[in-house]
Amino acid sequence: MLEPLFSPKSIAVIGASRTEGKLGHAVVSNLIQSGFQGKIYPINPQSSEILGLPAYPNLAAVDDKVDLAVIVIPAKGVLQALEECGEKGVGAVIIISAGFRETGHEGLLAERKMAEIARQYGMRIVGPNVLGVIDTLAPYNASFAAGMPRRGKIAFMSQSGALCTSILDIALARDIGFSRFVSLGNKADLNEIDFLEAWAEDPESRVILAYLEGISDGARFIEVARRITKHKPIVAIKSGTTSAGSRAVSSHTGTLAGSERAYEAAFKQAGLIRAHSVGHLFDLAVAFARQPLPRNDQVAVITNAGGPGIMATDAIERSGLRVANLAPETIAALRQALPPAASVLNPVDVLGDALSDRYRVALDLVSKDPNVGALLVILTPQFMTEIEETARAVSEVARKSDIPVLACFMGEANTQAGVKILTQNNVPNYIVPEQAVAALKAMVDQRRWQETPLPNFERFEVDRERVAEIFRKVRAEGRLQIGDAEARDILEAYHIPIPASKLCTTPEEAVAFAEQIGYPVVMKIASPDILHKTDIGGVRLNIQNASEVRDSFDLMVFRALRRMPDATIWGCLVQQQVRGGREIIVGMNRDPQFGPLVMFGLGGIYVEVLKDVAFRIAPFSREEAHEMMREIRAFNLLRGVRGQPPADIAACAETLLKVSQLVTDFPEIVEMDINPLMVFEEGRGVMGIDMRLVLAD
Amino acid sequence: MLEPLFSPKSIAVIGASRTEGKLGHAVVSNLIQSGFQGKIYPINPQSSEILGLPAYPNLAAVDDKVDLAVIVIPAKGVLQALEECGEKGVGAVIIISAGFRETGHEGLLAERKMAEIARQYGMRIVGPNVLGVIDTLAPYNASFAAGMPRRGKIAFMSQSGALCTSILDIALARDIGFSRFVSLGNKADLNEIDFLEAWAEDPESRVILAYLEGISDGARFIEVARRITKHKPIVAIKSGTTSAGSRAVSSHTGTLAGSERAYEAAFKQAGLIRAHSVGHLFDLAVAFARQPLPRNDQVAVITNAGGPGIMATDAIERSGLRVANLAPETIAALRQALPPAASVLNPVDVLGDALSDRYRVALDLVSKDPNVGALLVILTPQFMTEIEETARAVSEVARKSDIPVLACFMGEANTQAGVKILTQNNVPNYIVPEQAVAALKAMVDQRRWQETPLPNFERFEVDRERVAEIFRKVRAEGRLQIGDAEARDILEAYHIPIPASKLCTTPEEAVAFAEQIGYPVVMKIASPDILHKTDIGGVRLNIQNASEVRDSFDLMVFRALRRMPDATIWGCLVQQQVRGGREIIVGMNRDPQFGPLVMFGLGGIYVEVLKDVAFRIAPFSREEAHEMMREIRAFNLLRGVRGQPPADIAACAETLLKVSQLVTDFPEIVEMDINPLMVFEEGRGVMGIDMRLVLAD
Repeated sequence: MLEPLFSPKSIAVIGASRTEGKLGHAVVSNLIQSGFQGKIYPINPQSSEILGLPAYPNLAAVDDKVDLAVIVIPAKGVLQALEECGEKGVGAVIIISAGFRETGHEGLLAERKMAEIARQYGMRIVGPNVLGVIDTLAPYNASFAAGMPRRGKIAFMSQSGALCTSILDIALARDIGFSRFVSLGNKADLNEIDFLEAWAEDPESRVILAYLEGISDGARFIEVARRITKHKPIVAIKSGTTSAGSRAVSSHTGTLAGSERAYEAAFKQAGLIRAHSVGHLFDLAVAFARQPLPRNDQVAVITNAGGPGIMATDAIERSGLRVANLAPETIAALRQALPPAASVLNPVDVLGDALSDRYRVALDLVSKDPNVGALLVILTPQFMTEIEETARAVSEVARKSDIPVLACFMGEANTQAGVKILTQNNVPNYIVPEQAVAALKAMVDQRRWQETPLPNFERFEVDRERVAEIFRKVRAEGRLQIGDAEARDILEAYHIPIPASKLCTTPEEAVAFAEQIGYPVVMKIASPDILHKTDIGGVRLNIQNASEVRDSFDLMVFRALRRMPDATIWGCLVQQQVRGGREIIVGMNRDPQFGPLVMFGLGGIYVEVLKDVAFRIAPFSREEAHEMMREIRAFNLLRGVRGQPPADIAACAETLLKVSQLVTDFPEIVEMDINPLMVFEEGRGVMGIDMRLVLAD
Repeated sequence: MLEPLFSPKSIAVIGASRTEGKLGHAVVSNLIQSGFQGKIYPINPQSSEILGLPAYPNLAAVDDKVDLAVIVIPAKGVLQALEECGEKGVGAVIIISAGFRETGHEGLLAERKMAEIARQYGMRIVGPNVLGVIDTLAPYNASFAAGMPRRGKIAFMSQSGALCTSILDIALARDIGFSRFVSLGNKADLNEIDFLEAWAEDPESRVILAYLEGISDGARFIEVARRITKHKPIVAIKSGTTSAGSRAVSSHTGTLAGSERAYEAAFKQAGLIRAHSVGHLFDLAVAFARQPLPRNDQVAVITNAGGPGIMATDAIERSGLRVANLAPETIAALRQALPPAASVLNPVDVLGDALSDRYRVALDLVSKDPNVGALLVILTPQFMTEIEETARAVSEVARKSDIPVLACFMGEANTQAGVKILTQNNVPNYIVPEQAVAALKAMVDQRRWQETPLPNFERFEVDRERVAEIFRKVRAEGRLQIGDAEARDILEAYHIPIPASKLCTTPEEAVAFAEQIGYPVVMKIASPDILHKTDIGGVRLNIQNASEVRDSFDLMVFRALRRMPDATIWGCLVQQQVRGGREIIVGMNRDPQFGPLVMFGLGGIYVEVLKDVAFRIAPFSREEAHEMMREIRAFNLLRGVRGQPPADIAACAETLLKVSQLVTDFPEIVEMDINPLMVFEEGRGVMGIDMRLVLAD
C-alpha cells in the first residue's frame, strides 16, 4: 500500500521557499492548509523560518524520522537531494522538479539514476515532473495545486500534471471528492501499475480513475488490472497513439492492427472502462463512487415531463439497456396514487404540475419494484416544481434503496440548490438524461464483468521443441520468413490440422501416397530454388487418378528443368485437396506495448474490403475466443444462414487458443497469418491451408 | 415573418390573474418585466387592476387594436375566447391552456375547431398546451417561464414545453442568448415548418434550434429545411420513434427500414444537424451563433498542456477533420517567439508556465496562417496561468480573425472569470476538447453543405400511363401484389433494362425467339393458375439450342397438365439468361412520416446478414444517389477489388433515380424490391431480374 506515501507522519519539503509565487512556497502552504496532522519540515539553507515553521538548512539537520520528502528544486540538484533522502532513510519522495526525460537523453539518464538510488535505499519515487500528490485521508496536499478537493471515494492518477489542474478545478466546482490524487509524471520509479496495486484493496477508494498516455508494461498491466476490476471499477482515458509501429508490416493482421486496436483489446480484456473525455470520466466516476451497482439491466424512469422521458427511453434502448417492465402491483399502486392523466407505465410521468409529494410516492413504489435494476429520476424546473424538496425525496429513497438512484435535474440556474442536496446525499446528478444513461450502462457492464470469473488460460500438449528447432534452423540460414513445409510443421506441432501431404521423389511414391489419402489431390513441384511455382506451371489441382498423378509428376519436373536447368528438384509435393468449408483468417501481430495481438476474421472480402475483424491480446480464454468471434459483423455467416449448415465454431475457437499458445510460447514471432484456415461443418473441424510467419530480427 | 407574433404593438392576456402562483399572474408579470414597449391588456372579469395595469372584463372592452393575445384560462372556455379574439381582429394567439389532444378525442376535435376559427379570421395560433413565446427583440416574454434569457442569435422551438424550462434554465446559467423562443405545444395551427419559414430570413437568428417529437408534413419539412440550411444552420433533437410501422411488412426494404432510418435520411437530405442531447445542442448552437464558419477542415490547436493537446488531436482525427499543417513561416516565427522547449508544430504547446503574452503571440501567428481553417485554444489552470488575461487575448484575436476561434478553458471553479470574458466576447468555451471538436466538425460540415448546390431532381421520359394502366387492372382484379410479367412491364415502362423475354405459344415460336436473342435461354411455364413454377418442374435454365428449346416446351406443358389437368396453359416464357454481374437490391418502403424511403444494398448476405444498406427519401438527385451508394460498407466491392473489374456504378445510380421517379409518381406504391438487380462491368449497365411491388389497400 506504499505506506510512507499514503500515511506519512512527517513530510520534508526540499526547496521550500518564503517567496510567494514560487512552487516551493505553494507546496508548504498547501501542506499547512490541508490539515496534515504530522510534522512539516521546510528545507532551505537560506531561511530559518517559512510560513511560521522552523526551516532546516538540509535534511540531515532534521532531528526526526522523515517519511515523505517533496523535492522542488532545480533539476541539477535533484540527484544529490535524492541521495540525501536515501541517507536519511526517507520512505518515499515526490519529485516535483521538471527538466528530465522531457528535455532529452541526459534527462533520461538522470531518471535511470533516480531509479537506481531508490532501489539502493529501498525508497519509492513519484515523478519527476509532477504536480504532486494529494491524500484527503492522511490528509495532506503535497502539490502546488490551487485547491484541495474534498474527501471522497475516487482515487485518481494522471500522466499529465496539467490535466490534474483541470480535473481538480472541475472537481472543486462540482463538489466531487477524492481519496488519493496522484500526478504520475515521468514515472522514473512508481508507475500506473504500482498505484493500481496500492489502491486495489483500499476501502477508501471505490473507483480508480486514470489518465494514461503510454503504459509501462502492457502484459503486466492487463494482468493486474484484470484482477482488480473484478471487484473495483477502473475508468481510464487513454489518449494518443504510439508511432512505434514504424516497422514495415507485411501480413493482413499487421495492416489491420495498430496500437488503437491493441488498446481496445487490452482494455476489454482487463475489464477497464474507457472514458472518451474528461466529462465522461467524471460522469462515470461519481456514479461508481456514490451508488451501488444495478441489480439488473432494467432501468425505471420517473419524470415530470414527457420529452425528457422519451430522450431517456431512446438512450436506454440505444445503449443496450432495457426499459424496465414494472410489476403489475406497482402499476396498480401508481394508478391509485397518481392523477389520471399521469403515465403509470415506465417512464412514469408524474406530470408537469407534480409537487415533491407526487415524486415521493412514485419514487417509493418504483424503487421497491422487484423488476427494477436501477432508477433514473428526471426533473425539469417547471412552474410549480419543488426542486429542493424533490431533491430531498430522491435522496431519502436513494439512501433506503439497494438499487442505484441517479438524478437528472435538467437545468443549471434554478436547479443548483437541489443539485447541492443531491450531491450531499451521494446522488449523482446529470444535466441531460443521455449522460445518466451512459453511467448506468457502464455500471451494468461492470456488474456483468464482476460476475464473470477470471479467464482460464488452457494449455494444450504441443511439440514446442519441434518449433524451437525450426526457428533455430531458419535463423541459422539467415532467414526470418517462414512458409510452406516449415509452416506446416509448426501447425502440426501445435495440433492445428493441415491437409495430408508428402514430398514424393518418384512418380510411384506419389501414386502410392495419393491412393492412400484418396483423390482428388493437389501436386506441387518441390524445389528450394523455385519460389513462384504457379508461374512455371508447378501447381496442379484436382488430380483424379493414378495416371494423372504420374503424368503430372513427369510434366512438372520436365517443365521445371526446361525453365530452370540448374534448379535442384526434390520431387513433387502430393497433398490432400480440401473441398467445401469457409475461409477464415487467424493472424497475429506483436504490439510494441501489449505483445501478441491475435486477429480473427472471415477470409476474402470480409477482411480485405470490409475490415470486419476482431482482436484479442494473447493469452486469452476459450470464452474470450468465442466473444472475439461473435464480435465480427459477419459472425452469423458462421452460424449458418441461407440454408447453409453451421460451421464448426468450436474448432475455430480451439485454433485461436492454439495460436494464442504458440505466440505466447515464442515471443520471437512478430507476425503470422493462417490464411486461409478452412472451417467445415459443425463437428468436422478446421484445416490450416497456408501459413506465413515472421521472426524478430 | 408572422408579424403580429414577433412584432406586436399590444398584447392582451386573457385569464390574467392578481393571484401569485397562478399562470395568469406569471404571464402578466413576465410581460411587464421583459421590458415590452407596447401596451399590455390584462383581461379578467373579476379584477379592475392587475400588477398595476388596468384590467378589462373582456377583449371587446379594450379600446385599442390587439395584435397578440395570450389565452391562459381553463380548457372549456378557450374556444369562446378564441372566437372573441377573431372578432376583435387579433393577429396571433398563444394558447397556453392545456387539456386538449393530450386528453383524448374530444380535445383533438377542439383543436380542429381552433384551426378552423384561425382560418376564418386570418389569425395564427401557437399551441395549445405551451409554455409560451419569448422574443428578446420585441422584446417580450409571453410565457410563464421562470426567467428571460438574454438577447442572442439563436432561435429555438420545442415540442415539449417542459423541455423549454430546462433549456431556459441552462441558458440562464451559461449566459446563452436567444432571439426567439417558441413552445410549439399541440400545433393546432402553427407548426415547425411555419417557424422555419419565419426565421429563414431573420437576420437576428443565425442558427435555428428545434426539439422535435413528430413532424407534421415530412415531405414539405425536407423541402423547406433544405432551402434554409443552405444559408443558415438548423440543429435539431429528434426523440422517440413512431410506432406507426405496425402494418406487416413483407419486403427486404420494409424489414430494414423503420422510422429511425427514415429520420436519418430525411435529416441528411434536409441538411439538418442532429444533436444527440441537449448538451450537444447547446455546444453546436453557441458555435454557430457566435463564430464564422471554418475556412477549411484544418484545425490548429494552441495549448499550455501536452495531454489535452493530444486529446484534441485524437478528437480531430477521429471526427474526420485534419490537424492543420502550419505554414513554414508560421513555424519559423513561433520558434523565434516561444521558448526552446515549446512545441511549434500543431498542436502548438506554449508550455505550462505560459503567461498571457506567450498565448497572445502564438494566437496572433497561428490565426494568420493561411492553412488554418479554425482555431482551438486550450488552457489548463496551472500555477502561473493568467486565466483572465489569456481570455482577453483570445477574445481580441477572435474579433480580428475571420476564422472561427473556439476556447477550451478546462476547469470550472477558477476558470469562471475567464469564461465570462470569453462569453462576453462571443468566443464559445467548452470544458473538454472533445466537445469543442464536435462543434468544429458540425461547422465544417455546414460549410460543405452550404457550398453544395440544391439537388436537381432529374426526370426521365417514361411511360407513366402504362404503369397506371397496370395498377388499375391489378386493383380491378382485387389484387395488391405485383410480380412477374406485370413487374417486367413496369420496369420497362421506366426504362430499367430487363432480360429479353417473350410469351411463346408454340415450340416453333419459342425456337424462333431463342435464336433471335441468343443462347443460353431460360424457359418458364406460363399459366395464370401455376404460382410455384419450380415445384412442378416449370422452370428450366441454361437451354443451349433449338432442340433443347423444343424438348423443354413440350415437357413442361405435358408435366404441368399431368399435375394440374384443369390449368389454363398459355405456353412458355422464353427469356434471355443473364450471366456474370453482381447482385444488387434496390427497394422502397413508404414511411408514414416522410414517404418513399428508397434502399440500396448488395444482394445476398450483404443485405440479409450484414444489413449493409443505405437509405434516401425520394425524390433525390444523382449526387445523392452516388452518396447513398458510397455509404454502404461494401461499396469498394462495386469499385472493383481482388482483380474484379469495376461495376457499372453510373447505371446503378440511374436505376436509383428511375425508382425514385416511379415511387414519387405513384404514391400508391407502398413497397417494392428489385431483387436482384444485376450490375455488369463498367459501361455494360444493369438488368432488373426480379421485381415485387405492393400497392396500398
